[in-house]
Amino acid sequence: MARVRADTADEPTIVADPDRMHRDVLAARGRGRRVGFVPTMGALHAGHVSLVERAATECDDVAVSIFVNPTQFGPGEDFTRYPRSLEADVAAVAGRGATWIFAPHADAIYPPGCATRIVVDGPARRFEGELRPGHFSGVATVVCRLFLAVPADVAYFGAKDWQQTLVVKRMVRDLGLPVEIAVCPTIREPDGLAMSSRNAYLSGDDRTRATALHESLVLAERAWRAGEPVTAIEQTMRKHLASRGVAVDYAAIVDRESLEPPSKPPADAVALVAGRLGSTRLIDNLLLPRRG
Amino acid sequence: MARVRADTADEPTIVADPDRMHRDVLAARGRGRRVGFVPTMGALHAGHVSLVERAATECDDVAVSIFVNPTQFGPGEDFTRYPRSLEADVAAVAGRGATWIFAPHADAIYPPGCATRIVVDGPARRFEGELRPGHFSGVATVVCRLFLAVPADVAYFGAKDWQQTLVVKRMVRDLGLPVEIAVCPTIREPDGLAMSSRNAYLSGDDRTRATALHESLVLAERAWRAGEPVTAIEQTMRKHLASRGVAVDYAAIVDRESLEPPSKPPADAVALVAGRLGSTRLIDNLLLPRRG
Repeated sequence: MARVRADTADEPTIVADPDRMHRDVLAARGRGRRVGFVPTMGALHAGHVSLVERAATECDDVAVSIFVNPTQFGPGEDFTRYPRSLEADVAAVAGRGATWIFAPHADAIYPPGCATRIVVDGPARRFEGELRPGHFSGVATVVCRLFLAVPADVAYFGAKDWQQTLVVKRMVRDLGLPVEIAVCPTIREPDGLAMSSRNAYLSGDDRTRATALHESLVLAERAWRAGEPVTAIEQTMRKHLASRGVAVDYAAIVDRESLEPPSKPPADAVALVAGRLGSTRLIDNLLLPRRG
Repeated sequence: MARVRADTADEPTIVADPDRMHRDVLAARGRGRRVGFVPTMGALHAGHVSLVERAATECDDVAVSIFVNPTQFGPGEDFTRYPRSLEADVAAVAGRGATWIFAPHADAIYPPGCATRIVVDGPARRFEGELRPGHFSGVATVVCRLFLAVPADVAYFGAKDWQQTLVVKRMVRDLGLPVEIAVCPTIREPDGLAMSSRNAYLSGDDRTRATALHESLVLAERAWRAGEPVTAIEQTMRKHLASRGVAVDYAAIVDRESLEPPSKPPADAVALVAGRLGSTRLIDNLLLPRRG
């Protein structure tokens, strides 16, 4: 007896070969279909799923790439222990609108003898760029490579990595990459912790304390609304983080586009925070309401 | 009375806007036409024309870009005096098969606040890369930007800038840029001088002496065929150049792909030469026959 497989159309096709991926996306676009792209490093969580769902509502086809990019990790960072879980990842986006899962091998992205990298200055200079030398060059290089393999209409990034979204947008504009960049809201755990693949490293006390990042952002927003000066707000954030046992890398209020100190009101600002709990490093941010 | 304009179809369309260029090329390819691309810095000479003609024989449409790229000139180099002659350039390729002349303004290629550059290591390291810091990064960046504006099937480069062709091919491979690279033979004046826009700087004695570059390559080839050791051949080249008043930057026999010292026979080698006559800097090269 034949079984009706209503879910068949929801099974994403897994593609490893960049040329095949390129052909499939161009063929879909040639048939008039709008294609969305969600680049990820796998270990998919509700934040990634929200990007896939948003892409699926706006596009006819959605490609989700899964590639743990070695060049955006510094020496001593967590490249080797970064969570890898292709099966769970496929399950996470099946039925959410993913048409393809693009899971290339490392040497299809970085061919032997690879000697090319993309360097972005400007928005990449401070914060993560300062603390993780080479990180944004690795991000820009792999994102450009992925955009060329997956020539989509629009690519979706989470606002959780706010500085990364600025770096990607700048590269896309500077090189004239023919893709639109959509930045989507951060998805949080019920207690406010921003979804991140690195949250899997947290346990016990560290997981409890990790809410301090979001708390410091909420405190910042409240103080910002009350008109407190930027330096006082940054001080409040740092104090709160330290009181919860977070080793602060930075806690800053800056212009949300330039990442320089915010201009005089009305300012479009963002509060950025980064800190460490044991060996786990977390970042978060909050766009602040315009104040006049 | 109507005049038959048999040449109308030969008049290239001049396009300044990268988005317009992109649309036109994609539209042509969508109609099944093969598109060739010849990127230039203008001041077109017979070498460029040969690239356009080769493109026209292999493709249905040909785009010729004319853009004097500021980022590939170092401080103190000849960016400001580099010859600019759009009208003469249009005339040079009219009737040779150019469909479009893409002549963008600088801020369409490098938008204000531009912060992105492409860095190539490997084949870009030695020779021109050593003597002109940042030069190949400027080349790679503008070529990538141009390839994204002009999404052609195939792009044509002259072998005269041999190291440049290696850098471009490496970048294309590493980033997965969807374009084929065709390297075409160097075109020479009757006395052997390689065609170059910079030859316009030469006058009188310097123009006469400039043949020393090609002569040194011919000497190198003869010695190579005779089985002389590499260091002896390089010495012969340097001596000949110096005897003709050329200030030698380098004269080298290297592997034609890696630009490292040639492997044991059979070696696919190239002789590279660069030198200065007054304030004019010239380069040339010759692929050497495989010797076993």
